[in-house]
Amino acid sequence: MKRPVLSMVAGVLVLAASLTLAAQVLAQTDPLPSWNDGPAKKAIVEFVQATTTHGSPKFVPPAERIATFDQDGTLWVEHPMYSQVIYCLDRVPAVVKAKPELANVEPFKTVMLGNREAMAKLSMDDLIKIAAATLTGMSVETFKVDVTKWIAEAKDPRWKRPYTELTYQPMQEVLKYLRASGYRTYIVTGGGQDFVRLYAEQVYGIPPEQVVGTAGGTKYGYDKSGKPFLTKEPRLLLNDNNAGKAEGIHLMIGRRPYAAFGNSTGDRQMLEYTGAGDGARLMMLVLHDDAKREYAYGPAQGLPDSKVGTFTQALYDEAKKKGWTVISMKNDWKRIFTFEP
Amino acid sequence: MKRPVLSMVAGVLVLAASLTLAAQVLAQTDPLPSWNDGPAKKAIVEFVQATTTHGSPKFVPPAERIATFDQDGTLWVEHPMYSQVIYCLDRVPAVVKAKPELANVEPFKTVMLGNREAMAKLSMDDLIKIAAATLTGMSVETFKVDVTKWIAEAKDPRWKRPYTELTYQPMQEVLKYLRASGYRTYIVTGGGQDFVRLYAEQVYGIPPEQVVGTAGGTKYGYDKSGKPFLTKEPRLLLNDNNAGKAEGIHLMIGRRPYAAFGNSTGDRQMLEYTGAGDGARLMMLVLHDDAKREYAYGPAQGLPDSKVGTFTQALYDEAKKKGWTVISMKNDWKRIFTFEP
Repeated sequence: MKRPVLSMVAGVLVLAASLTLAAQVLAQTDPLPSWNDGPAKKAIVEFVQATTTHGSPKFVPPAERIATFDQDGTLWVEHPMYSQVIYCLDRVPAVVKAKPELANVEPFKTVMLGNREAMAKLSMDDLIKIAAATLTGMSVETFKVDVTKWIAEAKDPRWKRPYTELTYQPMQEVLKYLRASGYRTYIVTGGGQDFVRLYAEQVYGIPPEQVVGTAGGTKYGYDKSGKPFLTKEPRLLLNDNNAGKAEGIHLMIGRRPYAAFGNSTGDRQMLEYTGAGDGARLMMLVLHDDAKREYAYGPAQGLPDSKVGTFTQALYDEAKKKGWTVISMKNDWKRIFTFEP
Repeated sequence: MKRPVLSMVAGVLVLAASLTLAAQVLAQTDPLPSWNDGPAKKAIVEFVQATTTHGSPKFVPPAERIATFDQDGTLWVEHPMYSQVIYCLDRVPAVVKAKPELANVEPFKTVMLGNREAMAKLSMDDLIKIAAATLTGMSVETFKVDVTKWIAEAKDPRWKRPYTELTYQPMQEVLKYLRASGYRTYIVTGGGQDFVRLYAEQVYGIPPEQVVGTAGGTKYGYDKSGKPFLTKEPRLLLNDNNAGKAEGIHLMIGRRPYAAFGNSTGDRQMLEYTGAGDGARLMMLVLHDDAKREYAYGPAQGLPDSKVGTFTQALYDEAKKKGWTVISMKNDWKRIFTFEP
């Protein structure tokens, strides 16, 4: 009877040895291989160690480990135009087909003519009209079908790849590293909550209930068979930008984050709100200073000005004053996209 | 060298045996000991088995396992008055002390006189004025301090116990059973989201981010030292009752629940919305038909009518027609409160 027992022992010992080895390899493996050594990488690693090491004076209980990420310009490319704006413009022909009377009404007329230059000059009021026509009035289910189809087919003109591939590999590593350290990662985006929820799981591993975004109301009703459904309404509940990001975090999560990542003035209040908490907090801003590999815009630090993802010098100065970390895409990131060699 | 190894083997084998035994005990232990055998208990157990057994045609992946619970009247006592209304009335003296000009203004005058009978006759408009005065205008932090103190001190006059002890033991068992089966349990309440979030973790093991409720806006600002804070505003974003429950679930969770529990007409749309999904869905309504151990009210099934937690005959008929399960407190629950012998 001893042989099987001994054989089991051997198995157990091999298993134990393998597990120990795996743990050691894991500990020694760099969780952020796409980051160059420097203050940004150091800030992330030190924050994680300080808040997750038992006995650390800055230890944070797992239930309270919340990290929030802006999406456009922080997790993926936002230039020359937010992907959701492109979705809205791409949807205009279908909307006009359903409502032919719009064909000769601005701003739909301009969009139907297909002149990219004219489209780029559309005012905020025009864009709001286009957003209302393309993002509301349909059932939640119909919207899901339309967006899912577009996300699968649409391609960025510069890289000729789906938008879903234009995520920053270094930030994907931060998401995974934080989750492996017991953090729940949330997107807190100025983009549409319903829109981003449809691909956040596939692209970032972030489930719908962890996406906070600009949100409109829905209206409950019944179809002819008596089955209930929700219709998307042009009624703004949360403008998840600027102060709205702190307010949205309170509304949708109800906890103050321990870490917050952004890239523009629209993220300022989210970082301030995060930094106003006790203990260790991590506040980071991505600076787009790499015209060659991605885009360069500010106007902070003399970079070209931009209406999309504006990073002002005032925000840069506040970051420096408050000890937030500015991530230089050029210097801190070894590679930007997963598809790079 | 063999003795220590053998001793380790013995340890491993004992451990393995213990784990197997523990698993068997767990499987044989009734997860719902406070429920009498009957259709309600059967419906819960069968739903959990159908949706969590690998290979079952109705298997639900863990990420999609969402169960929503109304609070007042479903998880704890709501008669003779919602606990949050009592909080608001209890806060009136402090509000009047801070704003003495309110002392002679209705409805504050009636509340200050302390006449319970007169208070019970306050109109909905009066209650809204009292709610606005006691639930808004302060910082989120000040509100937290006030509510936490009240929750720790206030007692229900009938049972002379904190409100937090007036939760239904059978429903606590359902919450634990569902969580042990991989479900995330959410509260979806007509009560104030900020209010319920302050005790839901302690009372039900439900964290703040899993509480959806009637929600007002907040306003981001800075104190004299430049530290940001949020002020609660009298601006309604979500009335989480009736259709608002389905709309609130879409807004705050973004997934359709697989199970929903309620007790009044305010929960009708939540149950309809849940039931409109594919596969196995569990819809349950608690009927308060036990005047002796708790309260009896409907007016369904000839029970006394009630403004608080109204359960109409129409709702009862819809439940029967759609195959929802009505839980009889009197017949389905062996005991109601944890503190019962």
